[in-house]
Amino acid sequence: MNLQLDAVGPLYEQLARALKRAILEGRWHSGQRLPATRVLARQLGISRNTVTYAYELLCAQQLAVSRHGSGTRVRAVQPVRSPWHDNPAGRPLSRYARRARELGPIKLARRHKLIRYNLLYGEPLLDPPLFNSLRTKLSAAVLRTDPNYASPAGLSSLRSAVCRYLARRRGVACMPEDVIITHGTQQALSLVARVVLDEFDPVVIEDPHYQLALHALRAHGARIHSVRTDADGIVTADLPARGVRLAYVTPACQFPSGAVMSFTRRMELLKWAAQTESWIFEDDYNGEFVFEGASLPTLRSLDTHDRVIYVGTFSKVMYPALRLGYIVSPMRLRQDLASAKYLDDLGTAALEQNALATFMENGGFDRHLRRAGAELQRRRAVLLEGLNRYAAEHIEVTNSVAGLHVVGWLRKLDYAGLERLIGHAAGKGLGLHPIHPFYEKMPPRPGLLLGFAGLWPAQLDVATRLLGRCLDEL
Amino acid sequence: MNLQLDAVGPLYEQLARALKRAILEGRWHSGQRLPATRVLARQLGISRNTVTYAYELLCAQQLAVSRHGSGTRVRAVQPVRSPWHDNPAGRPLSRYARRARELGPIKLARRHKLIRYNLLYGEPLLDPPLFNSLRTKLSAAVLRTDPNYASPAGLSSLRSAVCRYLARRRGVACMPEDVIITHGTQQALSLVARVVLDEFDPVVIEDPHYQLALHALRAHGARIHSVRTDADGIVTADLPARGVRLAYVTPACQFPSGAVMSFTRRMELLKWAAQTESWIFEDDYNGEFVFEGASLPTLRSLDTHDRVIYVGTFSKVMYPALRLGYIVSPMRLRQDLASAKYLDDLGTAALEQNALATFMENGGFDRHLRRAGAELQRRRAVLLEGLNRYAAEHIEVTNSVAGLHVVGWLRKLDYAGLERLIGHAAGKGLGLHPIHPFYEKMPPRPGLLLGFAGLWPAQLDVATRLLGRCLDEL
Repeated sequence: MNLQLDAVGPLYEQLARALKRAILEGRWHSGQRLPATRVLARQLGISRNTVTYAYELLCAQQLAVSRHGSGTRVRAVQPVRSPWHDNPAGRPLSRYARRARELGPIKLARRHKLIRYNLLYGEPLLDPPLFNSLRTKLSAAVLRTDPNYASPAGLSSLRSAVCRYLARRRGVACMPEDVIITHGTQQALSLVARVVLDEFDPVVIEDPHYQLALHALRAHGARIHSVRTDADGIVTADLPARGVRLAYVTPACQFPSGAVMSFTRRMELLKWAAQTESWIFEDDYNGEFVFEGASLPTLRSLDTHDRVIYVGTFSKVMYPALRLGYIVSPMRLRQDLASAKYLDDLGTAALEQNALATFMENGGFDRHLRRAGAELQRRRAVLLEGLNRYAAEHIEVTNSVAGLHVVGWLRKLDYAGLERLIGHAAGKGLGLHPIHPFYEKMPPRPGLLLGFAGLWPAQLDVATRLLGRCLDEL
Repeated sequence: MNLQLDAVGPLYEQLARALKRAILEGRWHSGQRLPATRVLARQLGISRNTVTYAYELLCAQQLAVSRHGSGTRVRAVQPVRSPWHDNPAGRPLSRYARRARELGPIKLARRHKLIRYNLLYGEPLLDPPLFNSLRTKLSAAVLRTDPNYASPAGLSSLRSAVCRYLARRRGVACMPEDVIITHGTQQALSLVARVVLDEFDPVVIEDPHYQLALHALRAHGARIHSVRTDADGIVTADLPARGVRLAYVTPACQFPSGAVMSFTRRMELLKWAAQTESWIFEDDYNGEFVFEGASLPTLRSLDTHDRVIYVGTFSKVMYPALRLGYIVSPMRLRQDLASAKYLDDLGTAALEQNALATFMENGGFDRHLRRAGAELQRRRAVLLEGLNRYAAEHIEVTNSVAGLHVVGWLRKLDYAGLERLIGHAAGKGLGLHPIHPFYEKMPPRPGLLLGFAGLWPAQLDVATRLLGRCLDEL
C-alpha cells in the first residue's frame, strides 16, 4: 500500500489525510475493507492507536464506516480521477497578505517564568474588586441583553455612557451619535485606515511609535512618513506640507517616549490638518493616568474643523482581554466608520457592552478609576524612588508624567552595554525592555521602558534594587 | 455678538461649538468674561438652561473657567489667526468608503411593534436554559481569564473545543492550529477577503445570496461573478474557467433558497477550485440544523488540495448578539489569516471565549443543541403543516430540508400581487418577507422567506392561518 505521509501535524492526522486522498482518488473502491489496524500499524511501523485514531477521523469525515466485527470500510464516494496536482505555493496571496508576511510572525510579549520581576510595559493592574463588579454586571447582562443583532456602532446605552465619561474626565464634548464602539484601538485604526486611506496613501506617524499601529498601516498599504518627536511631542515643523491623508498621534502621553504634546504643538498640528485636509487619529490611550501637572485639552476639544478622530480604549483603564474601545468620529465620517464596522464584523458583542454600560453608569467605573489611579500613583512613586536611590548615577528619567511606564535613559552604557545589561538582569530574574526597537532613528543613547503596572510596590522595590546592582556590576 | 449656529445636534451643542470657535479664533481674549447666561439667552432667544449647559461644556473642554460669583471666563488659550475655512466636502474618502457609500445606508431588519406574527428570518430561538448556562459560565470566566492580551487566533481551549465539536457533529477533521476564532462569519469573510483578494479581483458568489457577504466583498473592491443555483446548489457548469480567486458558497443549506449542494456538485466545485487555484469560502452557517435526509460531507472534509476555508458561526446555534464564529483555515493560509486577525483587532475578547469553551467541553452545548434542534423541528413542522392546511393551493414549499426558514413560492400571484399581499398581511399583524431581494436575477414567480425560529408553535399556527386568509382574500 502506497501511503505518503506529509509530515505536518500529528501522525494520526497525516495518516488520515493520506487515506482520504487514496479514497477520493479512487485507489480504494467503495465498500472495500481497510486493513486491520494491527496490520497497517505493523506495515507502517507506527502504533496501533495512531491507526485507530486515523480511522476514526475518516469515519467522522463520512469517508469510511466502522461496524463492530466487520472492521472499517470505505463509504460510497464518487472518485475523482482528474489530473490533480498539489501546488503548495499556489497563487500569490493578496498584496495585503504579502505585506503582512513581510512584517514577520506575530510576536506577543513573552512572560518568562524565570523572570520574577518583569518591568514589562502593557501588563495590566490587577484589581480584584473590578473582577467582582464585572461578574455581577455580566451575569445580569445575559438576561437583559437583546439576543439579536445590535446596532453596529454599539449599544446606545454604552455610547451615552462613553459620552458622559469623556465629558466628565477628558473634557471631550460629544454626542452618542459620534461614538462607535470597537474592539479596542487596533480595530479603530483598521476601520479608520479603510475609510480614509487607499493603498499607497501617505500617513504620518510619530517616531518613536507603537509598533502594531505601524504594522496595521503598513499591511493596509500606507506609505509611512515618520516624524520625530521631542519633549513637546511631534515636531510640527517637520510635517510634510501636503499630500498626507492621516496623522497618527498620541498627544496625552507620547508612546513610548512619554512626552506630553504641548499646547502650541496641538494648535499647530490642528492648523496643519485643516490646511492639508488630513485627518488626525488622536490615540488617547493613556490620557486617564496623568500623574504630574494638569492635563491639556484633547485635540478633539480644540478642533474646529471636524478633522480629529478621537480614539479611546478600555485596555489600559480596565484590562486588555476585554477588547473594548471606541471612536469619537468627526461628523463627516460618522456614517462611513459605522458602515466599515458593520461590514467588518456586524458590531461588537452586545453582552459586554451592556455590562460595561451599567458599570459606567452606576458609578462603579469611576470608583475603579480612583482606586486604580491611586494604586498606579503608589507603584510609580516606588519605582521612581527606587531608581533614584539605587541607580541615579546610571539612569536619567525623562518626560514621564503620565502612563503606565517611565522611560529611563542609560547615562554610561552604549548599545553593546545595554545588551549585556539585559542579559545580566535576566540571569537575576529581572526583566528589562529596551526602548530603541520603537524608534525608526535609533536614539543616541540607550534607554529602558520601565513598566510598573504589573508589579506590586514591594516587587518594584526589589526590581529597582536588582537593577542598580546589575548596573554597578557592569 | 456674532455666533453662528450650525443646526447640527442639540442646541446647547451648537452654541458650545460656536463659542469654542470664537475663543479659538481669538475673537474673545483670555480672561474675558462670557455674557451672563440670562443676557445671552435673551439675545439669542433661547432658554437660559441651554446657555448654562453650553457654558458647562466649554468648561469641560477646558476652554473656560466658571467661578461662583464671578461668572464664566475664557481660559488662557493661544488664538489661531490663520485663514481657516471649513470645507465640509473635504478630500475624497478612500475607494473603500466610496464603494461602501454606494451600498446605501445600514439597514437592520426592523421589528415593528404592530406586527405581532413576524415570519422574519434570522430571529434567534430563545432558549431560557441557554441563558442560565451562559450566566454561570461567564461569571466563572471573569475570575479564570488571563486579563492580558490572548493569542490573536483565539484561546487554545476554545479552538480545541471547536475541533472536537466539528469532528463529532460536522464530520470536519481539523487541528486547533487550523482554527481562528472570529467575531462571526462577517469578520471571517472580511479577513479572508483581505488575505486572498486584491482590489478588482474576481469573486464568485451564488445567486441568490446573503446580502451582507456581497456588500463586504463589494466594499473590499472585488469584482462579483454571480453564478446561478438550482435544486442541487451552485451550477458548477457556469463557473468561470479561470481568473477567479475566491468562491463564496453555502453548501449545507443554500441561503436563502434552501438547496443542499449535491455530492456531485461538491466534487465538481472542489475540482474547479484545484484547477483554477481558487479558494472556496464554505459558509456552513446552518449545517447543524438539517431536518430531512442525511447531511452530506462538508467541502472541507472532501478537499484534498487545501483549498477550502471552512467557516462556522455561533449566531444560529446560539444567538447573534454573541458575535462569535470561527474559521478552519487551509494549512497554507493559517498564518496569514491569524496575522490579519491580529492586525484587525488583536484577537477576540478572552472572557466569552473562555465561557464558551467551558460550555462546549462540559456537555452543555450538546444538550443545548439537542433541545434547540428538537424545538426547531417542532416549530418547522407546525409551519409546514399550517402552510399545507391553510395555503396549499397558493404556496409551494421547495428545497427546505435545513435551516431556520422555509421558502414558499406563490403559485398564483405575480410581483404586483406579492406587494399587495405583504401590505394586506401587515395590516393584519402578519410580517411577510419576499425572497427576490436576495436574487440578482429576479425569479420568474414571487416567493416568501418564512422564518420560524422566532415564533412559538401556537404563534406559527396563527401566522399560517392569517397567511391563508390573506391569500384567499386577494
